[in-house]
Amino acid sequence: MAQQFHGVIPPAVTPLTADQELDLPSFTRSINRMIDAGVNGIFTLGSSGEVAFSTDARREEIIRAAIDIVDGRVPVFVGCIDTETNRVIEHARQARELGASAIVATAPFYALGGMAEVERHFRLIHEAVPDLPLFAYDIPVCVHTKLPGDMLVRLGLDGVLAGVKDSSNDDVSFRFLVDDNNKAGHPLTLLTGQEVVVDGAYMAGADGSVPGLANVEATAYVRMWNAYRKGDWGSVRTEQDKMAALMRITSVVQGVQGFGAGVGAFKTALALLGVFDTNQMPNPVAPLAGENVERIAAVLKDCGLPLARTPLEVSESTAVKG
Amino acid sequence: MAQQFHGVIPPAVTPLTADQELDLPSFTRSINRMIDAGVNGIFTLGSSGEVAFSTDARREEIIRAAIDIVDGRVPVFVGCIDTETNRVIEHARQARELGASAIVATAPFYALGGMAEVERHFRLIHEAVPDLPLFAYDIPVCVHTKLPGDMLVRLGLDGVLAGVKDSSNDDVSFRFLVDDNNKAGHPLTLLTGQEVVVDGAYMAGADGSVPGLANVEATAYVRMWNAYRKGDWGSVRTEQDKMAALMRITSVVQGVQGFGAGVGAFKTALALLGVFDTNQMPNPVAPLAGENVERIAAVLKDCGLPLARTPLEVSESTAVKG
Amino acid sequence: MAQQFHGVIPPAVTPLTADQELDLPSFTRSINRMIDAGVNGIFTLGSSGEVAFSTDARREEIIRAAIDIVDGRVPVFVGCIDTETNRVIEHARQARELGASAIVATAPFYALGGMAEVERHFRLIHEAVPDLPLFAYDIPVCVHTKLPGDMLVRLGLDGVLAGVKDSSNDDVSFRFLVDDNNKAGHPLTLLTGQEVVVDGAYMAGADGSVPGLANVEATAYVRMWNAYRKGDWGSVRTEQDKMAALMRITSVVQGVQGFGAGVGAFKTALALLGVFDTNQMPNPVAPLAGENVERIAAVLKDCGLPLARTPLEVSESTAVKG
Amino acid sequence: MAQQFHGVIPPAVTPLTADQELDLPSFTRSINRMIDAGVNGIFTLGSSGEVAFSTDARREEIIRAAIDIVDGRVPVFVGCIDTETNRVIEHARQARELGASAIVATAPFYALGGMAEVERHFRLIHEAVPDLPLFAYDIPVCVHTKLPGDMLVRLGLDGVLAGVKDSSNDDVSFRFLVDDNNKAGHPLTLLTGQEVVVDGAYMAGADGSVPGLANVEATAYVRMWNAYRKGDWGSVRTEQDKMAALMRITSVVQGVQGFGAGVGAFKTALALLGVFDTNQMPNPVAPLAGENVERIAAVLKDCGLPLARTPLEVSESTAVKG
Repeated sequence: MAQQFHGVIPPAVTPLTADQELDLPSFTRSINRMIDAGVNGIFTLGSSGEVAFSTDARREEIIRAAIDIVDGRVPVFVGCIDTETNRVIEHARQARELGASAIVATAPFYALGGMAEVERHFRLIHEAVPDLPLFAYDIPVCVHTKLPGDMLVRLGLDGVLAGVKDSSNDDVSFRFLVDDNNKAGHPLTLLTGQEVVVDGAYMAGADGSVPGLANVEATAYVRMWNAYRKGDWGSVRTEQDKMAALMRITSVVQGVQGFGAGVGAFKTALALLGVFDTNQMPNPVAPLAGENVERIAAVLKDCGLPLARTPLEVSESTAVKG
Repeated sequence: MAQQFHGVIPPAVTPLTADQELDLPSFTRSINRMIDAGVNGIFTLGSSGEVAFSTDARREEIIRAAIDIVDGRVPVFVGCIDTETNRVIEHARQARELGASAIVATAPFYALGGMAEVERHFRLIHEAVPDLPLFAYDIPVCVHTKLPGDMLVRLGLDGVLAGVKDSSNDDVSFRFLVDDNNKAGHPLTLLTGQEVVVDGAYMAGADGSVPGLANVEATAYVRMWNAYRKGDWGSVRTEQDKMAALMRITSVVQGVQGFGAGVGAFKTALALLGVFDTNQMPNPVAPLAGENVERIAAVLKDCGLPLARTPLEVSESTAVKG
Repeated sequence: MAQQFHGVIPPAVTPLTADQELDLPSFTRSINRMIDAGVNGIFTLGSSGEVAFSTDARREEIIRAAIDIVDGRVPVFVGCIDTETNRVIEHARQARELGASAIVATAPFYALGGMAEVERHFRLIHEAVPDLPLFAYDIPVCVHTKLPGDMLVRLGLDGVLAGVKDSSNDDVSFRFLVDDNNKAGHPLTLLTGQEVVVDGAYMAGADGSVPGLANVEATAYVRMWNAYRKGDWGSVRTEQDKMAALMRITSVVQGVQGFGAGVGAFKTALALLGVFDTNQMPNPVAPLAGENVERIAAVLKDCGLPLARTPLEVSESTAVKG
Repeated sequence: MAQQFHGVIPPAVTPLTADQELDLPSFTRSINRMIDAGVNGIFTLGSSGEVAFSTDARREEIIRAAIDIVDGRVPVFVGCIDTETNRVIEHARQARELGASAIVATAPFYALGGMAEVERHFRLIHEAVPDLPLFAYDIPVCVHTKLPGDMLVRLGLDGVLAGVKDSSNDDVSFRFLVDDNNKAGHPLTLLTGQEVVVDGAYMAGADGSVPGLANVEATAYVRMWNAYRKGDWGSVRTEQDKMAALMRITSVVQGVQGFGAGVGAFKTALALLGVFDTNQMPNPVAPLAGENVERIAAVLKDCGLPLARTPLEVSESTAVKG
């Protein structure tokens, strides 16, 4: 695998202070912890990095911080997520200026269109920042478009796309994409955005993974990647089973859905583990509290992760001081 | 009807030059033409005003131009459309500063959430610009959330929302919303975003309409509104039938979908009528050309609208000069 | 309007005894009550006539009963609803044998297919029962296919379809369908399945309506139809507003969704009004009880409909005797 | 694995003669071929067994034939697929009478309802045929309901369900279901309906698979199952890769979607291999012909499967003799 990018590239969750500022010390601890665990890259401003919630000023702050903390140890991927082409290009130019190793963009969203426009969108972004590797982010649950495999491979062969982050939850398409990519000479680096079926994506031949859960526990995903490269499928499966058990932190949450439950659980776990100072969430999402924090703490204990703080301390961590 | 806002408030389509700059002379002609026809307001940066395609700088340029052109003759609504709360608040503050009469915001999109977050979203926007009337824009086809009537009326009674622009294409819900709003003392101004079933929305008791097609032909919508206010339903129906026939400009388009077909047809019609200089579209959308322009010209002729330019002239209008 | 079929054609709700047998006396009362009110037809085994819940034996029992009760006073439409063509054809042949005036069929469902197969489906049904008027039932919420207007008009011109029952809740498409049908010489009889926006469908030019709510109160729908034919739009609107208020019986129901809430409310209202003996529902749906029945009773009272039985009597009506 | 059922249980594709009668000799060849390959069961009247297209008489004919051909060598699962409970129960009783080893039922479809009704649906079916093992068929693409894992495990613990055939294409949910089932003492036999990511389902701990593609090539799926049981993941992956390549017979089809492409390709492959006499399809689906047959033949050759007939012979196989 002589790819420029590969392996475990976690989408970094963005810590906030109680008053919703970027929490730089927590961000530093969290990114260092993942790099120390052996990850192969850091993806900042992904969906779980709260890109959609961040103003342009906040986005710049996050990119600067991430690149500064990583300090060249691994590549930094930057999410350039916005509704349509020209807005994405602005983010892409900024990411290049700030030193991104690669950028990640979705299909257009909000306005309705067809697949010809999706393809033109990626071509126009690439034209604007031709020197910067561009990854397509296939995430239909957010953008309501599934990127077709033949278009992706064509954009790879044309030098427009460097790779794909597949968060489509469509493992059948992913397997066919891997196969088509191999037949075309492997122009694309194919990363799965899965967390609990990464083993299946490796069976299919993925070049790496982008699991949000690696914010909470990166070492298992690194071990899984290493086992995969050695063909040690038994270990791949064992590590995946552990991570599936840990992913329950997101499904024990009650009364909250989507981002608030998923990223809310990641932040809460990180606060319980002492990595984040708070589990604060961006507007309009409320931080998890009370029994939800207790449930997450119970899952962490079941999985053998030692808590640095009590559930009550975490629930109170988002109280803004007067 | 002692509402602050009411009647026909077209979402202004944004003209571009061949090289995709804002075309100020065309914008001036088009807005003046609608105001001369008797519309009761102008909504700029709506979905058909290409808000999702415009960078922040372009958005500012459009708002400034619209407010300058309108020059106080009618209220100016400004679309503050973005993924999540803090980004919307930035647009809202800018709209206030630039002199908007009212702002229009959708439910959050891209990130997944629940209805509690949607409600908190509108409350936070209102807190940030409490003096500016806030309209909820119910457009599930773009944001994949249908705003529930009971939430809307509650936000109206709490002074958070001044009104609703309903583009949900769910006329049953709209009728129940009108009824609930009346029972609650009419806290909300209810505008339909329909174009070919505005008569039905008036039957239901709408306070006004926001038809994109009024960019092409505003006088019929103004006549329909006046007939409605006088209870002259026969005329309402006659005008609606004419506008349904004219709306065929969007359905005769072949090989293009969504915004490219709908707003593309509006721009093409305006170019054929001599109001816009070009029918240029924003990236990544291609302008309509060739037979599609001819088909639109044929519909305009059938509807008795005199063409100022030939289809060929319009198809060639987007060619960038060397 | 020289159509063979037109006007108000309610989908007859099917009364059950407490032990889920067909309740013939209640069925007789209900159908006679609608015919006495002046309806122009009876549609049996529609979605709200519980066609999907009824075994073939039960379907035959219902068709026989309906045709026997109606006794030639108005046409009887029979729903031939099943997954694919050959199953529908069996129902169609039986309906013909039993004396149906017309049959109603949806697009295929369950198996996935394309529009070519939908069109062939209707052609094959017509070939099997060429002498029986065939209505297409456009109900995407149940079958997940929206019937395109151009296909419907083509099938009308080819003599395959006699008409369409439009339950698509897409009033824009319906208006274009009416217009296309008129331009083609009116081959299709176009009926709206709406209940609270029938006025809009009449504005669009519908040939009639199929409102489930007419089981509860047919006279208002008949008055609305007559007013429409005379061009008395003020009365159309008044009657529609009354029926929108009455339709609240379906939205006050809590904790139950879909058929159980909608048809459950119709049956409960009919039981409260003394038309049905019970509000029993077919397996696996539970009958409405307790506070839901009280809420429906309150709506009926608000609308001025006199209750023949108490909510408690209705809640107890479904108790199976030992 | 002391389960009553496990391993490879192909959903038998139903061969038709040119004039759309059940083709018993082909059915016999095909089922015998799969049993000879070592499959652990036969599932008849599944989605790909054209249950939705078959009249009740045809269903009986198919069940009788399948049970007769299998002759006790392996268990026979029978699909009892219909819109609502009472119709399913009729099929279930017939299946029991004819000697089914187990039955398979989906959530209700066509009518809209909630999850309480889905659960009651399965409980009522089990009550009607308590002695017959009941499998829930989770196929949201057809029935538009995803069966929740906690409900499935609860129905397993209550003795209502014997297992689940998971065709939800949601591998994350499947992994959690396997885990929940194990924690509950393995009340459910969990079968994946996948074809190209069966390896991932085995990694997750599936009890078996129900791949339609096994009609074309059962031996590879049997080898994959045996390798899985021995923990030989390398062989699992190799066999899966081969089957992913073969599954391309369904994606090379052009101009046809869904069942017509998928089952159409299976039938065409079986006709090219000499197992089926024709590739005839049930109404309203047209059989694949011309270039589509040639494309499928090319895939078969690429995968090393020897053709018994030419594409032209297969295209002509559906011509009805005068």
